[in-house]
Amino acid sequence: MKAILLYGHGARNPEWAQPFHRIRDAIKARDPRALVEPGFLELMRPSFDEGVNCLVEQGATEIIVVPIFMAAGSHVKKDLPQLAANAMDRHSGLVIELAAPVGEAESVLAAMADYAMGARPEG
Amino acid sequence: MKAILLYGHGARNPEWAQPFHRIRDAIKARDPRALVEPGFLELMRPSFDEGVNCLVEQGATEIIVVPIFMAAGSHVKKDLPQLAANAMDRHSGLVIELAAPVGEAESVLAAMADYAMGARPEG
Repeated sequence: MKAILLYGHGARNPEWAQPFHRIRDAIKARDPRALVEPGFLELMRPSFDEGVNCLVEQGATEIIVVPIFMAAGSHVKKDLPQLAANAMDRHSGLVIELAAPVGEAESVLAAMADYAMGARPEG
Repeated sequence: MKAILLYGHGARNPEWAQPFHRIRDAIKARDPRALVEPGFLELMRPSFDEGVNCLVEQGATEIIVVPIFMAAGSHVKKDLPQLAANAMDRHSGLVIELAAPVGEAESVLAAMADYAMGARPEG
């Protein structure tokens, strides 16, 4: 079964995880049977490994990792392939594939441009 | 005249700035007269101050800063208000206002959810 892991950096403030939960909720709203979990590099749980374990426990055999990053820096280009390789070593038969970061998607950039053009002061 | 500053973290790899240029281009495509520049916290130019200066030179009197961040961590909550206050001190009469980060915008999160659901392995 296919699954999605939303890969993020992580931060000390728990609120930082909120966009990840909102993306997961939006995916579940479109497809209630979708397997989708966040997985963070550091500072926040679930870790990448914990996110993968959670998806495998739900029946995932193929995971596409979507980096929720603006661009492919070292956390995407270096850390992520290593995390994915280690996870495939741990779970025999599991396939993990890596997508481009959201910040490289035309549709996402268009949404950001629209938001910026209509942006108002916060608060 | 109103202007938009796209505030980002910055990184060592110059490619990291590409999404910022693409967002700026998308805004310019919608409104060729729009004043919009990137401005980075660190590691990358233009810095926040340089971005502000560039907009002021183009005639900006009111700048809305749009954080191109997934969530409001310390770079948005602490560093940004300080940068904005300093810039207003330097430019008398300039008003700088702060929008919520793109990662908190419903439309942006929806675009990320759509992208994740259709994501394919890169390369």
